[in-house]
Amino acid sequence: MTLSESDPTGLHRVLDDAVVLPQAAQRLDTRRELWPDEVRIRVEMLNLDAASYRQLERKHSGHGDAIRAEVLEIVRTRGKMQNPETGSGGMLVGTVEEVGPASPLGLEVGARVSTLVSLTLTPLVIEDDLARWDGLGERIPCDGYAVLFGRSIAAKVPGDLPAELSLSVLDVCGAPALTSRVVAGYSTPTVTVIGAGGKSGSLSLAAAREEGAAHTIGVVPTDTEADALRAAGLADEVVVADARDPIALRDAVVKAGGPADITVVCVDVPGCEGGAILSTAERGTVIFFSMATSFSAAALGAEGLAADVTMLVGNGYVPGHAEHAFRLLRDHAGVRRLFEGRLDR
Amino acid sequence: MTLSESDPTGLHRVLDDAVVLPQAAQRLDTRRELWPDEVRIRVEMLNLDAASYRQLERKHSGHGDAIRAEVLEIVRTRGKMQNPETGSGGMLVGTVEEVGPASPLGLEVGARVSTLVSLTLTPLVIEDDLARWDGLGERIPCDGYAVLFGRSIAAKVPGDLPAELSLSVLDVCGAPALTSRVVAGYSTPTVTVIGAGGKSGSLSLAAAREEGAAHTIGVVPTDTEADALRAAGLADEVVVADARDPIALRDAVVKAGGPADITVVCVDVPGCEGGAILSTAERGTVIFFSMATSFSAAALGAEGLAADVTMLVGNGYVPGHAEHAFRLLRDHAGVRRLFEGRLDR
Repeated sequence: MTLSESDPTGLHRVLDDAVVLPQAAQRLDTRRELWPDEVRIRVEMLNLDAASYRQLERKHSGHGDAIRAEVLEIVRTRGKMQNPETGSGGMLVGTVEEVGPASPLGLEVGARVSTLVSLTLTPLVIEDDLARWDGLGERIPCDGYAVLFGRSIAAKVPGDLPAELSLSVLDVCGAPALTSRVVAGYSTPTVTVIGAGGKSGSLSLAAAREEGAAHTIGVVPTDTEADALRAAGLADEVVVADARDPIALRDAVVKAGGPADITVVCVDVPGCEGGAILSTAERGTVIFFSMATSFSAAALGAEGLAADVTMLVGNGYVPGHAEHAFRLLRDHAGVRRLFEGRLDR
Repeated sequence: MTLSESDPTGLHRVLDDAVVLPQAAQRLDTRRELWPDEVRIRVEMLNLDAASYRQLERKHSGHGDAIRAEVLEIVRTRGKMQNPETGSGGMLVGTVEEVGPASPLGLEVGARVSTLVSLTLTPLVIEDDLARWDGLGERIPCDGYAVLFGRSIAAKVPGDLPAELSLSVLDVCGAPALTSRVVAGYSTPTVTVIGAGGKSGSLSLAAAREEGAAHTIGVVPTDTEADALRAAGLADEVVVADARDPIALRDAVVKAGGPADITVVCVDVPGCEGGAILSTAERGTVIFFSMATSFSAAALGAEGLAADVTMLVGNGYVPGHAEHAFRLLRDHAGVRRLFEGRLDR
């Protein structure tokens, strides 16, 4: 490959010495000029992955200035937003600024879009020092530009939904799509969603029920979240449990009608692998959507418990996932209320 | 739970302040006395997980004394062998020393067994300072004791196979079992095994072919391994590629008849997620058996490539996995030759 050629994966923007994909790269080339199959986006908002933001929040004890400084430093040195600790990124909303003549994405200049690929592989330049962001919260008003590759995906932001709401749906739209697919592989399964009051959790609950789950259990960490989830009417049973406590989680799920055939892990805190495995039935499936999941903890945890469960890495891409998630939000008032409740905070 | 009660998961041996399963614990209680459902094993050999041993080897530049010192220090401070960097452990062979009156494992005193649960959750005391080990290689002659819980699993070491060979089969027996199950879910699939010359790789190739794979591709890193794998006759195509180079891997696999419907990742080096995803067909499945797998690299890598692939965390436990692997070894002379070649080194 010469420098003048581009690869649909974005390989031509990797500045590392080793040949790695943009997601695995230490540093990306953020030059403004496009290769022929690329698209440049004028960024208006970044949305950090929840696990990434929480890590930054913990590390800097909630000091907004320090959090903002670290985000700026990461993007400046790496040419992309990838939390070095969690490995995760987030996504962005913006307006199409320029479309390369060979771009296969079908985007038009001026269209308002959200990226459906992670910020961890998206060349990004911040031009306003994030001056409008107080460093608190996952949503970052931002002026700057980002680049999409030939194989990237972007979704148009729907006209009937506020931008922030669309963005928060798109951020997690892989979860309900994969949940649907897994539920469809079982006959009238029991489905537990851990972190059911959150964005990916509530959408996954709605998807599971639509796809034929016979019994749904929503696990949340607090009574406040339990009340909100009960009011949303998305789960047959709502239980409060600390997902990091494997025995407490197992007992709570069993009491609510488990163990589950399918357990969907949507909580962005480390240490939930054992409890998820322990509260899943033999020949059941655990879907890990949390970026805080440890591969070895899951693999060795199941082995250590002699648990015959299928464990899926939650792939954020399933064809049609964005439209599916928007439809769930429109069709289920409870989902929309939970999303809007989170935006207000 | 009072101190006098035990839990089949081994929770009663966790010394951490938080309630976590033994696998996730910082430190285990290694007291010699058994709870009623436990079994104590007199250890004769430890077998470190390949990813763990390689990390130690790299860290200490291959100095055996330093590697041995670190293993001793880990086991002394944590009460189990869990590499803090890779999170992985290994397994052990020994003789049943004492069986608690309530043990459900069906073991008898004097039986020669291997643990099928990871060392990362097995209480372990080393009593000979590993004096017979030069620190080089994954197999560690050892005198000491280990404890099995109610829900642990152990396999009898077969009488017709040398102990070292049995141990190296049991170490990876989850891989061919899960590969079989996944292959059975496809109709005449193409199967790629990355790291096909190794233990889990060669067994997985044999399992895939037995289960009906129409075309098998073995990927190895060197010409020497390629020659050995060709001689073993386990794969339809043998190709040499660096699995960490995603583009090279994709191109090599495609040239050999891919992309694969099922890609089995058996190489214990970091950074193989992107290449595995890229060389797998749409609606295909990637099974990650390597403990060097990064959860976020897999999840975000697939999303970033808009790749509709199912990604499985390689669960080391599938019912009947030990017997299945021993049978594959006995039935496939090529598998046995590859295993014995590795033991000789």
